Amino acid sequence: MKALYFDKALRLCTVAAPKPKPGEALIKVTAVGICNTDLEILKGYMSFKGIPGHEFCGIVIKCDDSQLINKRVVGEINIGCRECSACNMNLTRHCPRRTVLGIQGKDGAMAQYLTLPVENLHTVSDNIEDSDAVFVEPLAAACEILEQIHLSPSHNIMVVGDGKLAALIAQILHVINPNVFVKGLQPEKIQLLKNLGLHADTKPFGHRTWDVIIEATGNPEGISLALEYIKPRGTIILKSTYNQKIAIDQNAIVINEINILGSRCGNFEL
Amino acid sequence: MKALYFDKALRLCTVAAPKPKPGEALIKVTAVGICNTDLEILKGYMSFKGIPGHEFCGIVIKCDDSQLINKRVVGEINIGCRECSACNMNLTRHCPRRTVLGIQGKDGAMAQYLTLPVENLHTVSDNIEDSDAVFVEPLAAACEILEQIHLSPSHNIMVVGDGKLAALIAQILHVINPNVFVKGLQPEKIQLLKNLGLHADTKPFGHRTWDVIIEATGNPEGISLALEYIKPRGTIILKSTYNQKIAIDQNAIVINEINILGSRCGNFEL
Repeated sequence: MKALYFDKALRLCTVAAPKPKPGEALIKVTAVGICNTDLEILKGYMSFKGIPGHEFCGIVIKCDDSQLINKRVVGEINIGCRECSACNMNLTRHCPRRTVLGIQGKDGAMAQYLTLPVENLHTVSDNIEDSDAVFVEPLAAACEILEQIHLSPSHNIMVVGDGKLAALIAQILHVINPNVFVKGLQPEKIQLLKNLGLHADTKPFGHRTWDVIIEATGNPEGISLALEYIKPRGTIILKSTYNQKIAIDQNAIVINEINILGSRCGNFEL
Repeated sequence: MKALYFDKALRLCTVAAPKPKPGEALIKVTAVGICNTDLEILKGYMSFKGIPGHEFCGIVIKCDDSQLINKRVVGEINIGCRECSACNMNLTRHCPRRTVLGIQGKDGAMAQYLTLPVENLHTVSDNIEDSDAVFVEPLAAACEILEQIHLSPSHNIMVVGDGKLAALIAQILHVINPNVFVKGLQPEKIQLLKNLGLHADTKPFGHRTWDVIIEATGNPEGISLALEYIKPRGTIILKSTYNQKIAIDQNAIVINEINILGSRCGNFEL
């Protein structure tokens, strides 16, 4: 099959199609998304070697469960050991022995075929296009925030960033809190968000007045802006990962007693 | 009066004694503690210029409230504007216009006399020595953790650090959780903690098993160790402040969905 393969450099090549292990399905990829994590992988993030890509839609070609054959599916990207306490709590995304599709120890979706355990798959309704279904994975990551923290209409909430994940987060939070504000960098992205009825601007405002700031910039400077604008005792939710350590002002966290919460993948079912 | 004065360098000098403003008391200092924050101030932390020192015990010499004269007191170090929402919530330590004794815009306790608002003062019982009363300020900072987060005997708790603040935190948490473990660096400090009945060692253990880690090392490496040992979705409480930005692995926070909580001064009354 054709695949994008990363080993210090990314190249299009022909490789053997993956063979499903017991309990796995073989999936023909019909659409794939590009995440900021993929761009970080190209810089060396996770020391990943193989086929990247973890946002996909596809069709089940081969599988023990005959009912799934020819079904359109999306898939959760973490594959747990099924034995540890995290897996037993349905938290395969925190299994210490997990592999992660296209990120850690498991070839991903930027290829004609991929394999995933059947239990990771979710069928896609007919009314959802492949190109929309690709967004289920980042949408679940956006919704993960709501599993971690209670947000209400009375909170002052700012999203920092205007990329795909930031835009998804802003739209999700807008359902709960009509005043959520997006601080972006790119005027055309800001306009898109405004067209969706969101408050958005390239300039931040409200120094030290935000109860909750979601940092989804994909830029190591993002946390500094968040620390500058967050209210004392406020909460900053971090979504960005980088292929490097970043410099932070620990004093601002300690002095203002800020709560910083890392947030990653979410459940597709929720 | 004699005072230690810091202006790029620390020197012992003779300065005019401070004059209490309305509502303030003049206090003769009888004992003063040295905090890691003082050492950071000498490196440039907070760009402080003046008399450092914020852990003290003293005797009220002059004050509008005659009942306080000659009383032994300790004092809360944050002086709020008394007008903002933080001050109205009894959170002067988060007042944006606050001064802080010996740290920010207010001469401190490494002198023969200091001034503080009467409302910041707490009288000291006769059975407490001056040299013990000095510990009220860092003890309140240790207890602040309990105001911020619920800790129970079922939590796996590690304190990283073996300095004064770490030792106070460990002793406080030991009351709640007999299994609290202290990871220090200095064998003689570890022995002191063991003599108090605490579990303590120079070697950490329990990789990714700790629900809560308190980082009170005063060392920029402290947070890295905490991030290495904390359980996924665990909480790291940060106590250390530094005169520099520090390098952190944001990925470890995001991927493991770690909660990081800054923690500073506490209420003396609690």
